[in-house]
Amino acid sequence: MKDLKSYIGQYRTELYDSVLPFWLEHSQDRDFGGYYTCLNRDGSVYDTDKFMWLQGREVWMFSMLCNREGVRPEWLECARQGGEFMLRHGHDGDFNWYFSLTREGKPLTDPYNIFSYTFAAMAFAQLHKATGEKRYAEAARRTFDHILERWDHPKGRWDKSHAGTRPMQSLAPSMILCNMMLEIEHLIDPEVVEQTIDRSLSDVMERFYRPELGLVVEHLNSDSTLSDTFDGRLINPGHTLETMWFVMELARRRQDMGLIREAIEIGLRTLEFGWDKEYGGIYYFMDRKGFPPQQLEWDQKLWWVHIESMIAMLEGYVLTGDERCRGWFERLHNYTLEHFKDPDYPEWYGYLNRRGEVLLPLKGGKWKGCFHVPRGLYKCLKLCEEMAAK
Amino acid sequence: MKDLKSYIGQYRTELYDSVLPFWLEHSQDRDFGGYYTCLNRDGSVYDTDKFMWLQGREVWMFSMLCNREGVRPEWLECARQGGEFMLRHGHDGDFNWYFSLTREGKPLTDPYNIFSYTFAAMAFAQLHKATGEKRYAEAARRTFDHILERWDHPKGRWDKSHAGTRPMQSLAPSMILCNMMLEIEHLIDPEVVEQTIDRSLSDVMERFYRPELGLVVEHLNSDSTLSDTFDGRLINPGHTLETMWFVMELARRRQDMGLIREAIEIGLRTLEFGWDKEYGGIYYFMDRKGFPPQQLEWDQKLWWVHIESMIAMLEGYVLTGDERCRGWFERLHNYTLEHFKDPDYPEWYGYLNRRGEVLLPLKGGKWKGCFHVPRGLYKCLKLCEEMAAK
Repeated sequence: MKDLKSYIGQYRTELYDSVLPFWLEHSQDRDFGGYYTCLNRDGSVYDTDKFMWLQGREVWMFSMLCNREGVRPEWLECARQGGEFMLRHGHDGDFNWYFSLTREGKPLTDPYNIFSYTFAAMAFAQLHKATGEKRYAEAARRTFDHILERWDHPKGRWDKSHAGTRPMQSLAPSMILCNMMLEIEHLIDPEVVEQTIDRSLSDVMERFYRPELGLVVEHLNSDSTLSDTFDGRLINPGHTLETMWFVMELARRRQDMGLIREAIEIGLRTLEFGWDKEYGGIYYFMDRKGFPPQQLEWDQKLWWVHIESMIAMLEGYVLTGDERCRGWFERLHNYTLEHFKDPDYPEWYGYLNRRGEVLLPLKGGKWKGCFHVPRGLYKCLKLCEEMAAK
Repeated sequence: MKDLKSYIGQYRTELYDSVLPFWLEHSQDRDFGGYYTCLNRDGSVYDTDKFMWLQGREVWMFSMLCNREGVRPEWLECARQGGEFMLRHGHDGDFNWYFSLTREGKPLTDPYNIFSYTFAAMAFAQLHKATGEKRYAEAARRTFDHILERWDHPKGRWDKSHAGTRPMQSLAPSMILCNMMLEIEHLIDPEVVEQTIDRSLSDVMERFYRPELGLVVEHLNSDSTLSDTFDGRLINPGHTLETMWFVMELARRRQDMGLIREAIEIGLRTLEFGWDKEYGGIYYFMDRKGFPPQQLEWDQKLWWVHIESMIAMLEGYVLTGDERCRGWFERLHNYTLEHFKDPDYPEWYGYLNRRGEVLLPLKGGKWKGCFHVPRGLYKCLKLCEEMAAK
């Protein structure tokens, strides 16, 4: 790749000189602990509620960096104080993780969301690795047990669907486990790790991926057939592409080149399907039959969709040299840096309209925290370095 | 108003020759009863699930027209078959109304939503009036009892907010009762009617309307103070304007000119606040402090917001002759007819982007049925006729 050095420089500067300092400086609550994530363009706080997905993700981010790049005191202190806030306030005493808290740490929203658990498990597994503290390993392990317990009915008592009429299953839990298992494997029985990876991979590649469509669907009937309903027609291209790089990482670990090539083909088809031919960028939600999607935000361009797709294409190129992956990676890099990066302040915009204009000027909110941008920059940096070393 | 005759002609043609025939022809399920609402631009069905809000609203619409304009057999038959479908499949046997059903009538989503109840109550009260059948009166009465029972905790067991931390109350139930009471009063003890109206009016005008802002907020702390949170900062201009015409109708009935003038001032201020000065139209969601709203669809232009605002301004003008109301009504009429009306097929678009371009080409969906367009055309027609008769 001819601009390899320039990519490496760009990702490194953006990550270490702009994005990470932004979160270290603006997100930490020095009075109550934990992280603000509702941050204006310039980093000022506009709302102080604390969302457990994003608390867990920031603990994970800074712990993971300590583990892979060597401890920096400000990273470790940031991760540790967030982890302590989570342990003190984030769960019900038995590692059932609330969805959100007040600034002070009082529970606002009950533990209805299984992804509050998955990001907590990843956070404490990496924080344990960075510190050696057993309390953190215990938190990760007990949270993982709850995840497996809730697997077959992740919405629990908050499920509004009427039992029995149209039982469906969702891609998201299997997708997240593909990623989570690599983050927590040092704490889990190796047999359980391999079984869980097997099950998640087979869910993604043999059930939710549909050869007759060439696409991954978000929801299936519980007998694994396609459903011609709003949920059953839903395609989330960003989800698919993120899942495909999770799959490539598992395949790389298992040295399974066939699986890597399968994931690349699915990623490429999803980009062809999800790319906006008129204005550029990838749609947020689509209907596989071309009907109106239920989600009014369907045509918006979201930061994580584009960053996760960059990783998928770059990983595909590094692993196989497939020129189609390089072409898409470069197109995605250019679109993403041009549209999401804020030229005047650090961190990136999250939400653009279909035309690529800023829809919300925030740098963080209820769903955007210290996660996709820095993780994406870090992954792309490492992949470029790997290529450069070859 | 100089174009009164042209408005009357336009509303009448649009209602009787285009919109009502569209729903009579395309929405009725001749095999299983009830109504399809997921309809493409040309009226073809793209999804067969049945949503109880919209089932109730269509029964209400055609029953109400029979009651006010005289029975037309096709209207009555349409209302009656929908009501029968609802009675047979729409509730749990005790008038707890599901949120959605399959085409055949199996429950899909449990009775979590109180507005499934309010629209059922309105539907059966008007269907009773049109037919004289006692079963329908009974359904309306028993549903109304449930609404009062659920009043203090409308989300019931499906509430995800953690008890006690931040108890809040919402405008929507009081707003809907302002309207519903006039639709069902012939079935309810007059004292209960007046008490319920008193309470709803005082909620809207003395609690949710905030003189310090000049605006109506969507959510308050339970001690009636403002909340500086996502929910507490939320302004929904269309909701406010719809509520203001409900208030004007109650004030008209009570011959309370002071209340009418108050409602007009609130409506005018809300339009100044909510009007998009760059592209025209009224925003869907806003933050009263100017922070990024949580709702990604915040800048979209929705059919019901504009139609309900037209009614509010026209009603204000008819009742007081206030020229500011006439000015806004004309501006809203022009924007709405120009942007939402489909020049090639009957019924109107529902969802436009900020620029007023079609975002979803549907004529009906999960939330858009036979309600705001025909009700708005009917209300505007009647208000214009009232003015012409003066």
